[in-house]
Amino acid sequence: MAWHVFIPDSLLEEANDPKIKAYKVGQVARACAIFGVEHIWIYKAGGKDGKFIKLLLEYAETPQYLRKRIFPITPELKYAGVIPPLQIPSHKPKAPPRIGEIREGYAYRKGKKLFADIGLDRPALIKGVAREGRGTFKIISVNPLRVIPAEPSEYWGYKVHLSRKTLAKTLKKANLDVVIATSRKGVDVRSAEVPLEGEVGIVFGSPKKGVIEILKEYNEDYEFDLILNTIPEQKTKTVRTEEALLATLAIFNFMRKRGD
Amino acid sequence: MAWHVFIPDSLLEEANDPKIKAYKVGQVARACAIFGVEHIWIYKAGGKDGKFIKLLLEYAETPQYLRKRIFPITPELKYAGVIPPLQIPSHKPKAPPRIGEIREGYAYRKGKKLFADIGLDRPALIKGVAREGRGTFKIISVNPLRVIPAEPSEYWGYKVHLSRKTLAKTLKKANLDVVIATSRKGVDVRSAEVPLEGEVGIVFGSPKKGVIEILKEYNEDYEFDLILNTIPEQKTKTVRTEEALLATLAIFNFMRKRGD
Repeated sequence: MAWHVFIPDSLLEEANDPKIKAYKVGQVARACAIFGVEHIWIYKAGGKDGKFIKLLLEYAETPQYLRKRIFPITPELKYAGVIPPLQIPSHKPKAPPRIGEIREGYAYRKGKKLFADIGLDRPALIKGVAREGRGTFKIISVNPLRVIPAEPSEYWGYKVHLSRKTLAKTLKKANLDVVIATSRKGVDVRSAEVPLEGEVGIVFGSPKKGVIEILKEYNEDYEFDLILNTIPEQKTKTVRTEEALLATLAIFNFMRKRGD
Repeated sequence: MAWHVFIPDSLLEEANDPKIKAYKVGQVARACAIFGVEHIWIYKAGGKDGKFIKLLLEYAETPQYLRKRIFPITPELKYAGVIPPLQIPSHKPKAPPRIGEIREGYAYRKGKKLFADIGLDRPALIKGVAREGRGTFKIISVNPLRVIPAEPSEYWGYKVHLSRKTLAKTLKKANLDVVIATSRKGVDVRSAEVPLEGEVGIVFGSPKKGVIEILKEYNEDYEFDLILNTIPEQKTKTVRTEEALLATLAIFNFMRKRGD
């Protein structure tokens, strides 16, 4: 099972302050990491921040020790420092390496050999087939330090997809088993059967427009498996996307079976 | 039934940026407002921001049109502008008054008479007994504009209590029917019976220390009705207070009976 979260590129339309914009993206990153979301999709909804949201989400997801290699200093990252660390398993601290340990790294060529920066004080020689760039590695020898490409064995982070397409098109591209839209006008979560099996898409609207309104604006239609109100009897006039995200994922996590 | 949320005065210890500190308090305010929390208690846990947290929570809870009367300009309010509006029923927009309408106001003496600023273009004469200061009023006549003191008929906001006492002492003072602590080491919420009747206290730790650790630090003990892990199988090493708050209230709201 994997969760796919869909957020609009207009996520930040109500924030004017660039520091707060960065912090808000950090909240999305944190919410998705806390509950083990595997994919974040940014769909077209008239906003201008798609690229910025993607950049900051990816920056947040990257282990601290790899950020300098992967992200050139750009004005967009000026306030990235306010993003709280995700502290997910892939964000390993610097510690003496252990055989069998899995670490996120960055592969680069040096002469005829491939080495990986895995956040330790020396590079690791890569055995086996690997590509340059970011990858996941398992330590097979400490002295000398050697790694092989590997698959993570626990939650490792999320992938970010900037679809540049409208919501219905983005959902089709994602090819999911179940798609749930969140809406104040949806079915009360307290009386709904929520299907959380397979690849599950969870769709959020923007601060100013709900999911259904956004679809209409692009003359689109989509047959959701469920349109769900996850915050029944809300006392505020509106709920912000990042608030709805955390609340909804908390409830879905509560509904989810152990270890799923 | 009423919900009481308990947060430590060390809530902001991990934020250095004053703008982010203000925003974080705003997140607490928003979470409490969304789910209709009636009381926020700030307990002593070694932090220095108790007064600041109280001020900003109260600022957020005050209707925009009364803020200038109630809050003198102080350096602590410098970044209050980043706090998102709560948009709760007491935060009424300026609109032609209607008889029977309830509005939050500020009573002041002028000569022998008491008037209330209820956020309209003219003051309202108060009939009946009222005290100077903030209060809730019902419009009984539009021309001339007259009000009487009244009780709100829907969720109206929260009260903030800066206890200056440790957690166990603060809890005793609050005199609750049920007290639930949140802790990563608590009972999995998926297998717990959560009592949500009467005056319910919901206790949160600080970014660096859990509820139990904070009690120990002051050589205190408290018999909670339940110690609950509301984010089972969390994928991040820690969950921040404001994140735990929103997630926990979302789940409790989900568990709560309709209209309760």
